[in-house]
Amino acid sequence: MAQKPSIPKGTRDFSPEEMARRNYIFDTIKRNFALCGYKQIETPAMENLQTLMGKYGEEGDRLLFKIQNSGDFLRSCCDEELVARNLVKLTNKMCEKGLRYDLTVPFARFVVQHRNELQMPFKRFQIQPVWRADRPQKGRYREFYQCDADVVGSDSLLNEVELLTLIDKVFTDLGINVAVKLNNRKVLSGIAETIGEADKIVDITVAIDKIDKIGLENVNAELREKGLGEAAIEALRPILELSGSNSEKLDVMSEILKDSETGMKGIAELREVTAALDALGHANEVQVDFSLARGLNYYTGTIIEVQAKDVVIGSITGGGRYDNLTGVFGMPGLSGVGISFGADRIYDVMTQLGLFPDDLGRTVKVMFVNFGEKEALQSLRYVKALREAGVSAMLYPDCCKMKKQMTMADADRIPFVAFVGESELGRDAIVIKSMATGEQSEYTLAAAIELLS
Amino acid sequence: MAQKPSIPKGTRDFSPEEMARRNYIFDTIKRNFALCGYKQIETPAMENLQTLMGKYGEEGDRLLFKIQNSGDFLRSCCDEELVARNLVKLTNKMCEKGLRYDLTVPFARFVVQHRNELQMPFKRFQIQPVWRADRPQKGRYREFYQCDADVVGSDSLLNEVELLTLIDKVFTDLGINVAVKLNNRKVLSGIAETIGEADKIVDITVAIDKIDKIGLENVNAELREKGLGEAAIEALRPILELSGSNSEKLDVMSEILKDSETGMKGIAELREVTAALDALGHANEVQVDFSLARGLNYYTGTIIEVQAKDVVIGSITGGGRYDNLTGVFGMPGLSGVGISFGADRIYDVMTQLGLFPDDLGRTVKVMFVNFGEKEALQSLRYVKALREAGVSAMLYPDCCKMKKQMTMADADRIPFVAFVGESELGRDAIVIKSMATGEQSEYTLAAAIELLS
Repeated sequence: MAQKPSIPKGTRDFSPEEMARRNYIFDTIKRNFALCGYKQIETPAMENLQTLMGKYGEEGDRLLFKIQNSGDFLRSCCDEELVARNLVKLTNKMCEKGLRYDLTVPFARFVVQHRNELQMPFKRFQIQPVWRADRPQKGRYREFYQCDADVVGSDSLLNEVELLTLIDKVFTDLGINVAVKLNNRKVLSGIAETIGEADKIVDITVAIDKIDKIGLENVNAELREKGLGEAAIEALRPILELSGSNSEKLDVMSEILKDSETGMKGIAELREVTAALDALGHANEVQVDFSLARGLNYYTGTIIEVQAKDVVIGSITGGGRYDNLTGVFGMPGLSGVGISFGADRIYDVMTQLGLFPDDLGRTVKVMFVNFGEKEALQSLRYVKALREAGVSAMLYPDCCKMKKQMTMADADRIPFVAFVGESELGRDAIVIKSMATGEQSEYTLAAAIELLS
Repeated sequence: MAQKPSIPKGTRDFSPEEMARRNYIFDTIKRNFALCGYKQIETPAMENLQTLMGKYGEEGDRLLFKIQNSGDFLRSCCDEELVARNLVKLTNKMCEKGLRYDLTVPFARFVVQHRNELQMPFKRFQIQPVWRADRPQKGRYREFYQCDADVVGSDSLLNEVELLTLIDKVFTDLGINVAVKLNNRKVLSGIAETIGEADKIVDITVAIDKIDKIGLENVNAELREKGLGEAAIEALRPILELSGSNSEKLDVMSEILKDSETGMKGIAELREVTAALDALGHANEVQVDFSLARGLNYYTGTIIEVQAKDVVIGSITGGGRYDNLTGVFGMPGLSGVGISFGADRIYDVMTQLGLFPDDLGRTVKVMFVNFGEKEALQSLRYVKALREAGVSAMLYPDCCKMKKQMTMADADRIPFVAFVGESELGRDAIVIKSMATGEQSEYTLAAAIELLS
């Protein structure tokens, strides 16, 4: 009985057309990573579960895909344990490995494991799939690519500046109009401190992060619910209602935070980064946004988020500075800053806005029609010469009806079709037809190479 | 307590230097796939176990990495089943998904699932990792890449010819001297038929496939063990001792197989393929080898194997024609031919022979030394302009001792170092030093771009 083929939910096949578009995005990102001197690494799809567990919270532990041990996977479970059905305990005994959940933890593990081979500061990029056992839904997959660049081993804010210019260049190259939002964890700490609620920093930032979506009054309601006093809520109001240019916002905020050392450090960092960006020039808008609170448990300085301006889709790139990437693996105090491009969302934005170049799907420049044995052999000679000249060329493999052969040229949007029939054979001639104009002429091989190169 | 970081046995991290070398191989293969009009697809790392099980034999089923179901993975196992410890049965209940074992079964699944979107003949390539729970050993990994190209939906031998010219071109581009061995399953069937042992074809071909390693007498001993009569063994002898040019071998064999219709069909196919190759010209040796029996259960026509001539390492590329790729998924009769490049072994060959270009590890063309805030900002302007001109450039992020900065340039083999100190600032000048010659001169930005492009 034949199986009806399918793939696991939340995963995807990519057709040649989709691959061409995905590669266009990956190549653009990769080219810019390389131009900035980031070096590529790759890590295994499978990591020891010990490396992954406990790094993404309880929810994250549940969302890890775990790989059953080979051979007798029950060998360390006794009957009593099996029927007791303690899932977490049994998983630990049945599975030693899991699929990576992101590229950050494997990178941290890589840095520690290879610390003696690495030159600091170390600039790495990594473009690989990650897996999460999330409930699949529109735009959320169980297998998706992350495209990360990080610099570790340097505290300089020039790293932030470089990553921000890189972001500006990538989105300019892709033709996506973006707003780059900037904040600093130290400013958020300063705010919590200043309104007298330093211990509630997480509640405060989670609430104010939603202001664009739910509005000031609902944010205040949430803050009240979390136990913030009216005085603190009133003190927050001017911060949440801040508007104006980056330097106006920074001036007002520096007045508000003047008694918080941490807060003022954050302001100074934001000033330095935005001043450098302005001096260098940037194509896309850069906005200081004090409500931005992405990855708060992780970031300790600069926070970066990028949103497409012409499509409502959430963040398409994000990042920030962290103080202690590798402490959990026994190498404390390694600071760094990194960004991650969301390739799937970028794909969706470009599809919605029609930003992919029109000729992406076209792999073959010229297809030779197959007229039979002798003609095919001569065509193969031409095909070989064209390929050696860097022109993608092919011979239709079967000598079947012309109409069927031309259907392939049409379907694959091949721009030129070549004919080497009996009459061309003796004259070393190639008839080439442009599929766009319908015009056709006779060429020598050399002229054909020139036409098609 | 900090964890000592490690990765699962049989898996690997790839350093920037290794990535540069691996990409060199992948890019060469990919470029040639594209020149021949093969279109890239990707499939998910995880497939339904139902798709994978039973496709690679009992051994293969055991070597699949199985992924534990999310949530209550014991939900369909009752206590009695658990303590009965029937591993195969329990795995089926605890795991619905597995990691792909090769790219062929996922490709077959892809073709059937997307049959209505595909234009036949369909030429696809796919470069992705696969996973096998094999015992790790030197040169054998649990995660490794396969690089496959296949044409399906065409019986024409011109597809074989194209794949063989592609192999010739890839190894010429990589600088590896190879011998391409050719056989045909129909010839092997013809041999078994002619010596009166048609039902023993697998035993016969498994034995004679070893002749290069163990010699004629040991092959004969193995054949005797498998129950072959002395008459049959004597009849095989001239076949195994065949030597000479391809056409000499084909002439002798066609005499031997003259009463086997299948055998003669195989001879005719080999003649057609080798004649076309000779007419087109090829840089690497192509040998007809009647002892070649790769993938016998799978291939039905042409069999291809490539060996490096200057290193003893086994096959570095292989392939062949199959009759029924997709029958198991309910789409019978789809014929095709494909090849698979063994990237890891190619890497080992190139490393042993020193074939990688010398400048592969060099990502950055010029590093600007960091002399402090003002100089750094001006340097960043130059860096930005250089990158926009396509030159990979960076500023050392920290203003630390010159010696430390120069250490990075040395370690990364950066060919040029640029200095924008206080005295250069006012004059819009850049001092550039060649690390190879030690010479340094002053440049304008435009002249620097010209030098470094």
